[in-house]
Amino acid sequence: MSERSEGTTPDVPRLQRELAEFARRREWGRYHTPKNLAMALSVEASELVEIFQWLTPEESSAVAEDAELLGRVEDEVADVLAYLLQLCTVVGVDPLSALEAKISRNESRFPPAENGHSME
Amino acid sequence: MSERSEGTTPDVPRLQRELAEFARRREWGRYHTPKNLAMALSVEASELVEIFQWLTPEESSAVAEDAELLGRVEDEVADVLAYLLQLCTVVGVDPLSALEAKISRNESRFPPAENGHSME
Amino acid sequence: MSERSEGTTPDVPRLQRELAEFARRREWGRYHTPKNLAMALSVEASELVEIFQWLTPEESSAVAEDAELLGRVEDEVADVLAYLLQLCTVVGVDPLSALEAKISRNESRFPPAENGHSME
Amino acid sequence: MSERSEGTTPDVPRLQRELAEFARRREWGRYHTPKNLAMALSVEASELVEIFQWLTPEESSAVAEDAELLGRVEDEVADVLAYLLQLCTVVGVDPLSALEAKISRNESRFPPAENGHSME
Repeated sequence: MSERSEGTTPDVPRLQRELAEFARRREWGRYHTPKNLAMALSVEASELVEIFQWLTPEESSAVAEDAELLGRVEDEVADVLAYLLQLCTVVGVDPLSALEAKISRNESRFPPAENGHSME
Repeated sequence: MSERSEGTTPDVPRLQRELAEFARRREWGRYHTPKNLAMALSVEASELVEIFQWLTPEESSAVAEDAELLGRVEDEVADVLAYLLQLCTVVGVDPLSALEAKISRNESRFPPAENGHSME
Repeated sequence: MSERSEGTTPDVPRLQRELAEFARRREWGRYHTPKNLAMALSVEASELVEIFQWLTPEESSAVAEDAELLGRVEDEVADVLAYLLQLCTVVGVDPLSALEAKISRNESRFPPAENGHSME
Repeated sequence: MSERSEGTTPDVPRLQRELAEFARRREWGRYHTPKNLAMALSVEASELVEIFQWLTPEESSAVAEDAELLGRVEDEVADVLAYLLQLCTVVGVDPLSALEAKISRNESRFPPAENGHSME
């Protein structure tokens, strides 16, 4: 019986297991060093950027109304997330807890009154 | 009462709501076009790459044993995920379903016997 | 009579003029903001990275012996340089003098005895 | 007597020799695989993107009037060019000829009448 049960919502740990299993069955482990996965993630992030590259801010905001563009965004989002989760699995980082902790830290770093615009 | 209840595991929809609320209270909406969020995502992905840039494959695989390096990885993973989720919120893409669909498609595109090494 | 005289070696100022003329005749000026050119540069840099993504260090060093791979590298190098030079033209930066100045600064920042490995 | 004679304009082959000499004296050769140099190039390209990340198109076009921002652009341009030239040296690609050939090819691929906006 397959792990991917139809009808249930995917969650992050399950997707991580599916990705690990996917790579294991194809013997991709030797390619999946943290270094290579980080590179692959950045390459996919650039493919996402490429979609918006020549658009005005307004055109980029209207992407949800263009089914073809939105499909491409969805596809690249999946690729970015796939490599991010595989990197997390390989190095042993929990992505959701890492983000939760970051948001908490940023709450104090960027008080709501202040008008900056960076989360770094 | 705050939405972020201590003691519960964060999930993706909750993190998306927290990030949206975080940005709303700082009036960052005008900066958060899909184009800008995609750029910010790629910049954070490069900061992740920068950690591994000059390491050998073996050194990169040992990153989990170096608490300082691992902390930096965790930090950049959080940044990448933050921008990825914010982009998804803004354009209306469900990241987990997008990845689930992608894995299914790739199951047929890359039969286990085949020895390629790309998920694009 | 064309500016591009056959038989002479191209130099950077001439390439910058040719690129500017190329864009002018296609009315691409409105797309060529510094922001968009920087994005396009980073997208092309990622296409260069993509070539090496899954290669071992040794395989990447042997790229010069593989005519097909080398051709792809050459092609992406041209794209990266094209956007870099166009960005320089648009913002008024002289790329060769900028690099010359940087090398001079780095001569003192990284004394030869020291064994670091970054130029930032 | 130093190769870098004051008062002469730097050209690309001279900068390539200076960069090679710079790396040789610091024994950075083992880090400078084509793969690592391509990664480093993309990381520097992202640092260039970061400058423009949250700016409107209009603000990005005004960068030349802001001495501090322009200095940062100049600095990152130098870094991008440094890694691009070092990559070219290592793999044996002539960047100026590669770009010259690309411009020629694009002259026929993108006739001036056509209104596309990509050089890929």
